Amino acid sequence: MKIIRTIQEMKAYIKSLQNERKQIGFVATMGYFHEGHLTLMESAKRENDAVIASVFVNPLQFGPNEDFDTYPRDEERDIQLARETGVDALFMPSAEEIYPQRPSITLSITERTDVLCGKSRPGHFDGVLTVLTKLFHIIEPNKVYFGMKDAQQTAVVDALIQDLNFPVELRGIETVREVDGLAKSSRNVYLSEKEREEAVWLYRALEKGRVLVADGETSPVTIINEVKQTITDNTNGKIDYVELYRYPDLKAVSKLNGQVVLAVAVHFNKARLIDNIIFDETGKKLTSFTNR
Amino acid sequence: MKIIRTIQEMKAYIKSLQNERKQIGFVATMGYFHEGHLTLMESAKRENDAVIASVFVNPLQFGPNEDFDTYPRDEERDIQLARETGVDALFMPSAEEIYPQRPSITLSITERTDVLCGKSRPGHFDGVLTVLTKLFHIIEPNKVYFGMKDAQQTAVVDALIQDLNFPVELRGIETVREVDGLAKSSRNVYLSEKEREEAVWLYRALEKGRVLVADGETSPVTIINEVKQTITDNTNGKIDYVELYRYPDLKAVSKLNGQVVLAVAVHFNKARLIDNIIFDETGKKLTSFTNR
Repeated sequence: MKIIRTIQEMKAYIKSLQNERKQIGFVATMGYFHEGHLTLMESAKRENDAVIASVFVNPLQFGPNEDFDTYPRDEERDIQLARETGVDALFMPSAEEIYPQRPSITLSITERTDVLCGKSRPGHFDGVLTVLTKLFHIIEPNKVYFGMKDAQQTAVVDALIQDLNFPVELRGIETVREVDGLAKSSRNVYLSEKEREEAVWLYRALEKGRVLVADGETSPVTIINEVKQTITDNTNGKIDYVELYRYPDLKAVSKLNGQVVLAVAVHFNKARLIDNIIFDETGKKLTSFTNR
Repeated sequence: MKIIRTIQEMKAYIKSLQNERKQIGFVATMGYFHEGHLTLMESAKRENDAVIASVFVNPLQFGPNEDFDTYPRDEERDIQLARETGVDALFMPSAEEIYPQRPSITLSITERTDVLCGKSRPGHFDGVLTVLTKLFHIIEPNKVYFGMKDAQQTAVVDALIQDLNFPVELRGIETVREVDGLAKSSRNVYLSEKEREEAVWLYRALEKGRVLVADGETSPVTIINEVKQTITDNTNGKIDYVELYRYPDLKAVSKLNGQVVLAVAVHFNKARLIDNIIFDETGKKLTSFTNR
């Protein structure tokens, strides 16, 4: 596996792949890999000739009071895991390499962001879009892989590709879960034993909402209340939000018709967990998708 | 020559060119071709396997009080001229094709714009950047061609490519002039016979400024005053601006050292003319350039 730290070297490598007419799959990450990241890389491996992953903790997407400095980093472990997963090249640029000066051109998004986690992180997705645009231009991938665990990020990347006509295919990949259904997350280690047992109720609550829909319910308020009640009855967590929106445009829904995302965020003592499921008005789940 | 009106058809055509490993040169225009446009197409023709030009009057780059509705259009003539110049495909999408809905993602630029013509057109270059990003993604050119007559636009495209790492080479092409030196422009026809004679003094004034520099002058104020005086002495035009900036970053210069642009805008009775020259501290002119 190549470890590439400069844009120039990456562009030369991309040119060589293109000359060999290789299809490139790309996984953009902030490192500190967990099974979710590795699953994206495995999907990219199955569907492309070459897989490139990037590890870049993007300062532009952190707010002034957020944890840029303390965001967990472990280069050696990431290199090891990417190699074992069959990644062809790992792009690990410095902040100075990506932003030699403060960028004079930035992207901003006016929709899909004032809901869910985006509400409390103004400017976050603008930073995500700017760095992804740069990475997509450097790596020129045929397909890019994002986890559906962060449904809002996937929706924002979908907007980026559609609105700006990026010559890239978006693959949304199913959330990886523990055997009991809890969505995998680096933050799960912060749960106490009791909280860990309770945490499974996030997914169970979402599923109860979905089953209501499958049984004919069309009112978002009823579905959301069912999810809230289930979480309150079964955990000591503090609900941050339970929301339901049309997917992927994240518009409010007054009556279920078409694809929606049902999403939760719950604070436990030392960890805030998020989860979501996407389904249509018949309750049929979307487990992965391809947008061109 | 192909005439292509949909993004889907253009993407299919681009794919076929890429399969044949053809290098693509691209000229983005708002149509109503004059010799300046045709020179860009000819340059693209010489340096690439296939030339694509676009004609799209971009609503996003016009202010509310600007002339979007009355901007001159002549499709038949443009098709004829592009065909004669050897363009391979002319992209003529509708506004609905490029903006099926109001874009939720836009680009903005915070530098290089608060000077020259950009000062009086807030938001103009944001609209330019957004449409160019879309066009570059649709056409995936190897090289893009812009006229140095609009030095600020060329500087802004340079920022776009550098800041966002576009896999595109920028070619700046020399301003086309009449035999007496007047920069070619569709607006020259609005000049009276007397104004047409006077108008040559824009270029002559710029050249006098450049010769001062070649003779050792390093003060921007002295150079600018010489240009202003020359225009005032020889025309009845009303000077909008005479400015000098470092090029391409368009920063203020206190003492000449390195490449600068010396630019003028002058109002005549029915036409506002612009012109510029780019040179270094020895007075050596830049007539065309390539930025990767």
